[in-house]
Amino acid sequence: MTQHTPDWIAVDWGTSALRVWLMRGDGEVLERRRSESGMGGLSRDGFEPALLELVGDVLRDGRALPVICCGMVGSRQGWAEAPYASVPCAPPGIAQATLVRSAEPRIAAYILPGIKQAAPADVMRGEETQIAGILAADPGFDGILCLPGTHTKWAHISAGEIVSFRTFMTGEMFALLGEQSVLRHSVADAGWDAAAFDAAVAEAMSRPERVAAGLFSLRAETLLSGLAAQTARARLSGLLIGMELAAARPYWLGQPVRIVGADAIAAPYLAALRAQAAEVSCVADEEITLRGLIGAYAALSEGVE
Amino acid sequence: MTQHTPDWIAVDWGTSALRVWLMRGDGEVLERRRSESGMGGLSRDGFEPALLELVGDVLRDGRALPVICCGMVGSRQGWAEAPYASVPCAPPGIAQATLVRSAEPRIAAYILPGIKQAAPADVMRGEETQIAGILAADPGFDGILCLPGTHTKWAHISAGEIVSFRTFMTGEMFALLGEQSVLRHSVADAGWDAAAFDAAVAEAMSRPERVAAGLFSLRAETLLSGLAAQTARARLSGLLIGMELAAARPYWLGQPVRIVGADAIAAPYLAALRAQAAEVSCVADEEITLRGLIGAYAALSEGVE
Repeated sequence: MTQHTPDWIAVDWGTSALRVWLMRGDGEVLERRRSESGMGGLSRDGFEPALLELVGDVLRDGRALPVICCGMVGSRQGWAEAPYASVPCAPPGIAQATLVRSAEPRIAAYILPGIKQAAPADVMRGEETQIAGILAADPGFDGILCLPGTHTKWAHISAGEIVSFRTFMTGEMFALLGEQSVLRHSVADAGWDAAAFDAAVAEAMSRPERVAAGLFSLRAETLLSGLAAQTARARLSGLLIGMELAAARPYWLGQPVRIVGADAIAAPYLAALRAQAAEVSCVADEEITLRGLIGAYAALSEGVE
Repeated sequence: MTQHTPDWIAVDWGTSALRVWLMRGDGEVLERRRSESGMGGLSRDGFEPALLELVGDVLRDGRALPVICCGMVGSRQGWAEAPYASVPCAPPGIAQATLVRSAEPRIAAYILPGIKQAAPADVMRGEETQIAGILAADPGFDGILCLPGTHTKWAHISAGEIVSFRTFMTGEMFALLGEQSVLRHSVADAGWDAAAFDAAVAEAMSRPERVAAGLFSLRAETLLSGLAAQTARARLSGLLIGMELAAARPYWLGQPVRIVGADAIAAPYLAALRAQAAEVSCVADEEITLRGLIGAYAALSEGVE
């Protein structure tokens, strides 16, 4: 139980997890909570109970506590569909949010929209709120944001707007190939080989098609010459990130790049971009999403007052 | 129960299945049998019982029936390790086979070796016996064999030898991305769109790195413009096969190519190679592996006589 009654609740509701922050109106975090009730495992009727299970104890009768959500919770299969905003646009805020119709009088739940791009076709849900958080901390940022993850996003930011973006399934492919394919026998769960990573990035960037042949070579080298499993892991990562960087070249070439993510996931991107002499910096802000949600709450409370 | 006692047994023992043919000495098939006891699910002690369960009823006391096996059964985790032959070499035959030490006196089991290549590192187990089968039917074949599958093999054949080969995980990636990744919501289990496939092949061949970005576009187009699931399936296949063809260009460019495989798996390769004006033919010989095993038996029986 928290000591104070929160003024509002911030919610990052993704495919695999539900994270909430019990918040004071001034932006102070009273308490963090988390459950595994991600959007992927819930039917439409399951969202409200999942949220109430996590925060029901702090709700009070007679008051609808603002709950501001971002992420896959706003998808067609989510709690309520929050229509996409379209690039170019500023990260959408509370004015574009969808108010969830709920039978629970103790909450007023808003879902922030994702962003879409018509050509090339692309979508994001959740990252736009991270971008809002980055711009809240650094309103003048102009350049490229790289948000590595299961689905890495590259976004061109200018004059406070998301101009264009592109999604790469690099993280998901790394997990599928390393854990589910025949390469699972060759690739370690952890460990690294920086030189092998660098060489694989360079190979994939100069001849991206070779990634197709380079994958099975990892298995063959394990069998024939005892390739170390952590070297195989670094090479697999390097091949996939190299192919991504080759495709994302229009984003990072000649532009300042800021990688947003925890060290473990940001480090390979940082190394690969530095090897290309890109102008790159790195911020590891675990609560960047919260910053974006705080911005949305501020607009809500201003609107209310 | 078979009508006749077989003279020998042909065995194609892969990762996921065990296929046997009860054979007469003249090459006639008495009976086909199959079980799901693939190498992937067996420990070393499990192979002999799995085989006896399938064929024990045809064995006779007082005689060791020749059993000739190919495939992953000869891997390090298999029944017995059959060391690789090295390219350049003819498809290995019975003289290079490993005789399994077995407590069962009613069988004499041989495992044909796989083939390895030092640089670029590559291995095959099972396909060498398919190649033996192809060369048995057409001893003068000189050119490129494409054996599409979970792990597609390209092999350069000249003067009866495998000169070099290369493995692509295209089939496995197609299955992982289409069934396990976020694209599973976009990609149909069946159906096709030939124009979408052709366009995706052309895109991947001209700009292979774009495959990295093109994958998530399938998901985005589903969400934004209702991309048909069978079109998504054809595009996913086209992107992956296009990248493979870009990497395998040294194999197929200016060389006669023969695709060996059932229609469903050969057809996209045929279409993609024809679009590149490659000189390509297709043989759908389901029992090509059996032909290779029959060749090995012939050498064994000649050696015995």
